[in-house]
Amino acid sequence: MAKKQVFIHDDFLLTGKSARRLYHEYAENLPIIDYHSHLPIAQIREDVNFQSLTQVWLYGDHYKWRALRTMGFPEPLISGWPEPAPDRDRFLAWAQTLPRLIGNPLYHWTHLELKRYFGVDELLSPATADRIYTVCNQKLAEPGFSVRSLMEKSRVECACTTDDPADSLEHHLKLAETGWKVGVFPAWRPDKALAAQEAGSLNPWLDRLGKAAGERIRSYDDQLAALRKRHDFFHRAGCRVSDYGLERPYAIPYKRSQIKTAFKKLRDGKSLEGEELERYRSSLLYDLLVMDAESDWTQQLHLGAKRRNNLAGFQALGPDTGFDSIGDFPLGDALVALLNRLDGEGKLGRTIIYDLNPRDDDLIASIIGSFQRDFRAGATGGGPIPGKIQFGTAWWHNDHRDGMLKQMGALANLGLLSVFVGMLTDSRSFLSYPRHEYFRRILCQRLGTGMDEGEIPDDFELTGEMVKNICYENAKRYFQFPAQPPG
Amino acid sequence: MAKKQVFIHDDFLLTGKSARRLYHEYAENLPIIDYHSHLPIAQIREDVNFQSLTQVWLYGDHYKWRALRTMGFPEPLISGWPEPAPDRDRFLAWAQTLPRLIGNPLYHWTHLELKRYFGVDELLSPATADRIYTVCNQKLAEPGFSVRSLMEKSRVECACTTDDPADSLEHHLKLAETGWKVGVFPAWRPDKALAAQEAGSLNPWLDRLGKAAGERIRSYDDQLAALRKRHDFFHRAGCRVSDYGLERPYAIPYKRSQIKTAFKKLRDGKSLEGEELERYRSSLLYDLLVMDAESDWTQQLHLGAKRRNNLAGFQALGPDTGFDSIGDFPLGDALVALLNRLDGEGKLGRTIIYDLNPRDDDLIASIIGSFQRDFRAGATGGGPIPGKIQFGTAWWHNDHRDGMLKQMGALANLGLLSVFVGMLTDSRSFLSYPRHEYFRRILCQRLGTGMDEGEIPDDFELTGEMVKNICYENAKRYFQFPAQPPG
Amino acid sequence: MAKKQVFIHDDFLLTGKSARRLYHEYAENLPIIDYHSHLPIAQIREDVNFQSLTQVWLYGDHYKWRALRTMGFPEPLISGWPEPAPDRDRFLAWAQTLPRLIGNPLYHWTHLELKRYFGVDELLSPATADRIYTVCNQKLAEPGFSVRSLMEKSRVECACTTDDPADSLEHHLKLAETGWKVGVFPAWRPDKALAAQEAGSLNPWLDRLGKAAGERIRSYDDQLAALRKRHDFFHRAGCRVSDYGLERPYAIPYKRSQIKTAFKKLRDGKSLEGEELERYRSSLLYDLLVMDAESDWTQQLHLGAKRRNNLAGFQALGPDTGFDSIGDFPLGDALVALLNRLDGEGKLGRTIIYDLNPRDDDLIASIIGSFQRDFRAGATGGGPIPGKIQFGTAWWHNDHRDGMLKQMGALANLGLLSVFVGMLTDSRSFLSYPRHEYFRRILCQRLGTGMDEGEIPDDFELTGEMVKNICYENAKRYFQFPAQPPG
Repeated sequence: MAKKQVFIHDDFLLTGKSARRLYHEYAENLPIIDYHSHLPIAQIREDVNFQSLTQVWLYGDHYKWRALRTMGFPEPLISGWPEPAPDRDRFLAWAQTLPRLIGNPLYHWTHLELKRYFGVDELLSPATADRIYTVCNQKLAEPGFSVRSLMEKSRVECACTTDDPADSLEHHLKLAETGWKVGVFPAWRPDKALAAQEAGSLNPWLDRLGKAAGERIRSYDDQLAALRKRHDFFHRAGCRVSDYGLERPYAIPYKRSQIKTAFKKLRDGKSLEGEELERYRSSLLYDLLVMDAESDWTQQLHLGAKRRNNLAGFQALGPDTGFDSIGDFPLGDALVALLNRLDGEGKLGRTIIYDLNPRDDDLIASIIGSFQRDFRAGATGGGPIPGKIQFGTAWWHNDHRDGMLKQMGALANLGLLSVFVGMLTDSRSFLSYPRHEYFRRILCQRLGTGMDEGEIPDDFELTGEMVKNICYENAKRYFQFPAQPPG
Repeated sequence: MAKKQVFIHDDFLLTGKSARRLYHEYAENLPIIDYHSHLPIAQIREDVNFQSLTQVWLYGDHYKWRALRTMGFPEPLISGWPEPAPDRDRFLAWAQTLPRLIGNPLYHWTHLELKRYFGVDELLSPATADRIYTVCNQKLAEPGFSVRSLMEKSRVECACTTDDPADSLEHHLKLAETGWKVGVFPAWRPDKALAAQEAGSLNPWLDRLGKAAGERIRSYDDQLAALRKRHDFFHRAGCRVSDYGLERPYAIPYKRSQIKTAFKKLRDGKSLEGEELERYRSSLLYDLLVMDAESDWTQQLHLGAKRRNNLAGFQALGPDTGFDSIGDFPLGDALVALLNRLDGEGKLGRTIIYDLNPRDDDLIASIIGSFQRDFRAGATGGGPIPGKIQFGTAWWHNDHRDGMLKQMGALANLGLLSVFVGMLTDSRSFLSYPRHEYFRRILCQRLGTGMDEGEIPDDFELTGEMVKNICYENAKRYFQFPAQPPG
Repeated sequence: MAKKQVFIHDDFLLTGKSARRLYHEYAENLPIIDYHSHLPIAQIREDVNFQSLTQVWLYGDHYKWRALRTMGFPEPLISGWPEPAPDRDRFLAWAQTLPRLIGNPLYHWTHLELKRYFGVDELLSPATADRIYTVCNQKLAEPGFSVRSLMEKSRVECACTTDDPADSLEHHLKLAETGWKVGVFPAWRPDKALAAQEAGSLNPWLDRLGKAAGERIRSYDDQLAALRKRHDFFHRAGCRVSDYGLERPYAIPYKRSQIKTAFKKLRDGKSLEGEELERYRSSLLYDLLVMDAESDWTQQLHLGAKRRNNLAGFQALGPDTGFDSIGDFPLGDALVALLNRLDGEGKLGRTIIYDLNPRDDDLIASIIGSFQRDFRAGATGGGPIPGKIQFGTAWWHNDHRDGMLKQMGALANLGLLSVFVGMLTDSRSFLSYPRHEYFRRILCQRLGTGMDEGEIPDDFELTGEMVKNICYENAKRYFQFPAQPPG
């Protein structure tokens, strides 16, 4: 009887000769620039070891929680609310769920992680759960499995965390002092500043921001000054990217005086709503994006999430616990208004736009094509870099093969796939780097199939270069991260 | 010369080894649970024989009518309006149309039906029309071709019709007395109650409802009481599913007093419009869904149809005659508001959400993931069953291979395809059961191809189980239909 | 060592046996009916020769400009603004860009054009740019490369330009006098009439219209009378198609008196906005479409473009220079209202609806199915022709393989692909006829693969006929262009 092939083998997802050659010769061994993640910096600084697969996989991954809830498990086995079930039981619930996830990226991610970090070839199921749990937990305790070791093994060249403007960045600074070869940079995410629908939580945050900046924030201009100070501080700490989590773009007209009044109202404890809220957000978002351009950062707009769908769930567990979905908001007019205003003022910097509703992939891919050059800056200046305005890789609910292929397809059809800055993990987990491998395999399979079928010239110099650019070189050129995080 | 293979052969649509094995070993012989159809119960009770293919195929199938109209035939050959053309002529028009339908599901459905019920291997065309018409009509007259025989041949285990709350269900009850082994259950479809934009037709319906319930309906609460009585009556008749045909979900805030006033207005013959209509529907839809939850039924929301597009056509022929299309209404906010309210009150029961615009597949598939557990009910209770909130199978204008693959793809990528309750016919025709076969072949082809290409483990225990679950077992567990319809 | 196959070979994009047979036996040699283009009629009349590839390819093609801008080139190398760079430099910029366009239709179009018109087999790149530039420019100077020769070589049977109602059509008329065998007809595009948001440019246009019609335009009715006269004039010049470039359909209710007032306002130099603008457009669009029906023309609605996104770019370069994108406007309600009104009045003629946002493909394909017959005209009349209301081929930003396959898929699933009138160039370039070849290959590959995989009967009489119809015969029957343009 022939030996059955393991699931995650060398040519996983690569069905043709050209795809295999592209992946193994051009993509496989490239370093990783993980320009957007949610990794906990404190754990990197402390270089912790995890104690169990449950801890790595199930303590905070709301993708998995949604699957467990769909299976009907009680919440203590899922998020651990209100009292966590024992780690082993939670792992067993996950092992029961995984075989039902065929077709979901979690099925591929899980087995890629088992294979790459632990050398496990078995499929995870109730039958193999005990053995896998024991073996992996033993390995996790070894020194080679500390979080920094995991990042080194994954060939991470640099990674960005996600940070609040009021954050002290103390862990980043301390980590930088160690001289560790992997660059870990903060990323600026001022979402709390835009949350003007809740004065109750905004005001304490403004106080924290003011404290961090050494400013007393009494006016909208005070706020901008404080943000500017923190922006500079982040820059000195190596930050080169910002990130905005927006339901929709905000770009309605406003008068400066309206914004000043609105801010006073907020400071008096009154939340904004309706048009006033929209105006306030339009103003602040614009001012923040101008700061990014002035610092020559790359700004990321994450558009289209509908959050806190299940209020009871949200109230029990807080944000990012599995109660957010895709939204079906109109995006086109406001996004164009925002980009056009920035462009018209010569303040449109490098920008990556991510959409959460894949029905908008073609919309976004066509809009970016209108803003690649700054006409106000005059005719003779070239763009700062090919692909100044990027359509970001398939995000969150779209982070699977179909989503990636759709995003790449829209970008290829409507723009230049070749100048795409490629993949990121967007993850909280130190085991999620195989998502870059997954992306690279899918990209190589797409291009390789095109070569085999004659849509793309059978010329590896041409396509191999393209693969290397998308998987690494474009990001390297585009973001211009510091060589080393400054100590 | 090699004999040409017939079109509908054993491996129709199954191109790979694994797909064939999955279909033939796991799917082919499973019974059918047809949990949503428009079958005429009177014909089942009377166990009628049809007299011609024209009668079965063309008297009421607006899918076919749309095709015939696109061909430019006069209406007497299509719907038979205002005076029907002879049956044979109508059949010939259809035989002229069919060869032009390559690529449309009607092409596959028609040939599947000819093969499965009549053993016809020839392609229908003007050249074969006479022969096929004669052969099939002869068979239709045989006892083995009565509608009950057709359902038995198709391995139907149970089927649900679509019924108005005011309906006496007399045919269901009489049929149940016969002890026929196929369970035929009513399904509750209170769309007429929600049609408050037309007081003129609503009031006679309310009177019929009151009569059926033995209540005089003078207030909104009277209406609810009457609906509750009928709901209980339907339950006793074996009903376990409700069904709502909604343009969009209705879920705006309202006060109980506003609804009472609106109802009085309706009873005074004044139609509702604008916000008042929206509030009224929001209230009544909510109250109806609560009834479903309290009876532990499964509720089905059919969203997104744009109806009566062609007013002249509608006025000539009435509803469901081919003048409805996909709509492009926003759905997300209202759907989430509705589900969230029900969930917050502990009144969100098993729910299947169907969308008609396939651009919303990912939206729906992501929204259901936020509502699989009832957080208000406490943490420790599990969900009632895996996949409590379902994304319904590709519906109506999407009931074709691409539509099914898109729906399954969205569900797989964003949730658990494994717990999907699968296919239904949604049909008025007793020859439409091969649509289940069609679905099963497409599902097996999808999974089998995934196995052959290494995306899915080459493990038939795993995938064969998955196929059986989606094609039969999940529905069996989910709906909990009575073993026998109560006589 | 085996000789490497050239990129554009006989079976380019045709991977299966059936696809190849369909293309070579049924599609390849058919004439072209190019029923929508932007070809400059003056150049046809003068039968000019182009001087360089730069002139043909880069002087006016905003698809290519967008790609060049994404690469970051200075504008003189792109659109030539404000002062054009030398032709050779512009060509070299394009040669640098092309290898980065793998996956974009420009990559295929460019190599198809090089092969078909110039016999060039090499891939365009910086390494081959000089050689290709020299060879092609030499050929372009030959008599066989005049624009009429190019059209003849491409087997163009007839072509429609795009013309303003105030245009004298002098070039069309002069060309017709030559008796050239290719029919070149004007197409009626009254977009300027609908631009009532800018009285400043509308009024001079109304004056030109009046002059052309020999009418003084003081009232809305004067305008209609002038348009009607020009409509008749266009008809006499061989025009049989109109074309509307609309952001969205306009179809809100209005009173005739409101429109008269609005027109007076316009003539007084006041631009319209808000509801008044919408009403005005609803009225004028309706009146224009009625004219088309009364002349038995085919009307084309191009829906969903979002224009002038980059205001600075637009101000520098004017319209159609690369600053337009897909929009995400709701379309369904207004489109149905418009078609329903026309249909109800017996004024709905042959209509082709193009959408620019591919997320709306299924929406449009389902809407057309409700309007194929005119019920008001009585039951017994057949439609004028199969497929009276057409879903137009993938347009502009969707004019690539994925876009075409999606459009064909929606049409096949929801209607009759067989009656589709097929491809057009929509181009400003005389080298763009290979887009018809591209479409035909993609169509044949789709159908041929379906045959090979058993979805479509293995019957070349059936599918070959279908291919011929879609590629040529349907358009021939549908548009009813005059045999010869009247001299």
